[in-house]
Amino acid sequence: MDTIRTIDDMQAASAALKRSGRRVALVPTMGALHDGHVALIRQARTQGAAVVVSIYVNPTQFGPHEDFREYPRDMEADSQACGREQVDALFAPSDAEMYPDGPGPLAAPTWVEETVLSRRFEGERRPEHFRGVCTVVAKLFNIVQPDLAVFGQKDYQQLKVVTRMVRDLVYPVQIVAVPTVREPDGLAMSSRNQRLVGTERVQATGLWKALSVARDLFNEGEQNAHRLEAAMQRTVGLAPAARLDYAQVVDGETLEPVAKVQPGNIALIAVHVGRVRLIDNLIL
Amino acid sequence: MDTIRTIDDMQAASAALKRSGRRVALVPTMGALHDGHVALIRQARTQGAAVVVSIYVNPTQFGPHEDFREYPRDMEADSQACGREQVDALFAPSDAEMYPDGPGPLAAPTWVEETVLSRRFEGERRPEHFRGVCTVVAKLFNIVQPDLAVFGQKDYQQLKVVTRMVRDLVYPVQIVAVPTVREPDGLAMSSRNQRLVGTERVQATGLWKALSVARDLFNEGEQNAHRLEAAMQRTVGLAPAARLDYAQVVDGETLEPVAKVQPGNIALIAVHVGRVRLIDNLIL
Repeated sequence: MDTIRTIDDMQAASAALKRSGRRVALVPTMGALHDGHVALIRQARTQGAAVVVSIYVNPTQFGPHEDFREYPRDMEADSQACGREQVDALFAPSDAEMYPDGPGPLAAPTWVEETVLSRRFEGERRPEHFRGVCTVVAKLFNIVQPDLAVFGQKDYQQLKVVTRMVRDLVYPVQIVAVPTVREPDGLAMSSRNQRLVGTERVQATGLWKALSVARDLFNEGEQNAHRLEAAMQRTVGLAPAARLDYAQVVDGETLEPVAKVQPGNIALIAVHVGRVRLIDNLIL
Repeated sequence: MDTIRTIDDMQAASAALKRSGRRVALVPTMGALHDGHVALIRQARTQGAAVVVSIYVNPTQFGPHEDFREYPRDMEADSQACGREQVDALFAPSDAEMYPDGPGPLAAPTWVEETVLSRRFEGERRPEHFRGVCTVVAKLFNIVQPDLAVFGQKDYQQLKVVTRMVRDLVYPVQIVAVPTVREPDGLAMSSRNQRLVGTERVQATGLWKALSVARDLFNEGEQNAHRLEAAMQRTVGLAPAARLDYAQVVDGETLEPVAKVQPGNIALIAVHVGRVRLIDNLIL
């Protein structure tokens, strides 16, 4: 497996792959790889493409008071995981490579911004988050020139925002979505789970319990979104270290809240557990 | 010469060219082609690449009270001109193809925006202009996948904004700049010149006269930017149909106004002549 550090080398490697007739699949990650990422990589491999995993903790998608510094990093373990999964190339650029003009507001004068699906939920709580995500994904697409890119459904709003960006800017990239991978107790795999301490890990299952309660109520015939949302809120409230940010049932495409729940709607949830903010979702 | 109307066909044609080992050069235009465009096309051909000319009057770079409707259009003449210049493909999409969700603020939820070089001059007078330009250029790059793209120096700020966008988003596209082509009396070639009526055409030479006065003063040793700017203003004032918008000497890279003029600084000028707004510039 090649580990590639520079944009020039990655663009050249990708161009060479494509000249040889191979399709290229990109799995964009922020590293600290877990079984959720492995599922993305394996999905990419089933597409018969050369698989490029990018590992870059992108500063522009973190707000000034968020966990950019604390975000888990372990390049050695990540590199081994990619080797085990027969990844063709690992693209791991430095900050200086991705933002040569340094940090700060003028680091990247050019932004890519999706302005509709980004508005609510994560975008409301993290005002610059999706602008940072869209910009770095656009850059990664321009660097890796993938034919397809694989994203996890765990970050459902991100998946929809990126899909919309690709459609609006007509990137010749197919977006492939992969279902969320969970721990045996239901907690969605996330690099941020590493940051849970003591009993927070057990209490973090409150997100999945809340989503499961909503799903069960819906399957029993409850169609009132407010009742599902109230049930999610009560469930999260059972964990003393948990503080609910939002729990809402939305349309799966527009991400607009619904009043009457229909199959295919999504229950979205965000919860602070101690100092860690976790998100999850479930298709009803 | 192929005339291509859809994004899918253009992406496929470009991918086929690249698989065959050819480089692709894009000449993005809004049509109503004149000798300035011909110079861009010929420059593209000297690069040994297959030449794709795009013709699209992009609505999102016009403000609500600007000349989108009046902007000259003549596809038949443009197609003939491209044929004469041995263009490989003419990409001429419809509005429905480029903005499938129709006009209006939600037409394109995703925007590409350069936020530093765009601020002054054209960006200040036309607040959404460069956002529209960057977005449509990004789309054209994603559609045509060019190895190089050719822009005229006549739209100097646009050239710098697009160059910055390409650098920030690391598009694998080389930007080639071509000097402004002028009429015998100095008027910079522009599709908008067609809209000048009666004596406005003669009076429009005021832009070039003003730039020439600034150049002559500088060559005679004047380094005070305000004196150059005042001289340009006086020169434009000699034409009764002309109304100066701005005349300023700026740094050629940052586009920041300068006090003491240095070689390589740029004199920028924008003038309303009757109902037509014209811009021009000169490297000092």
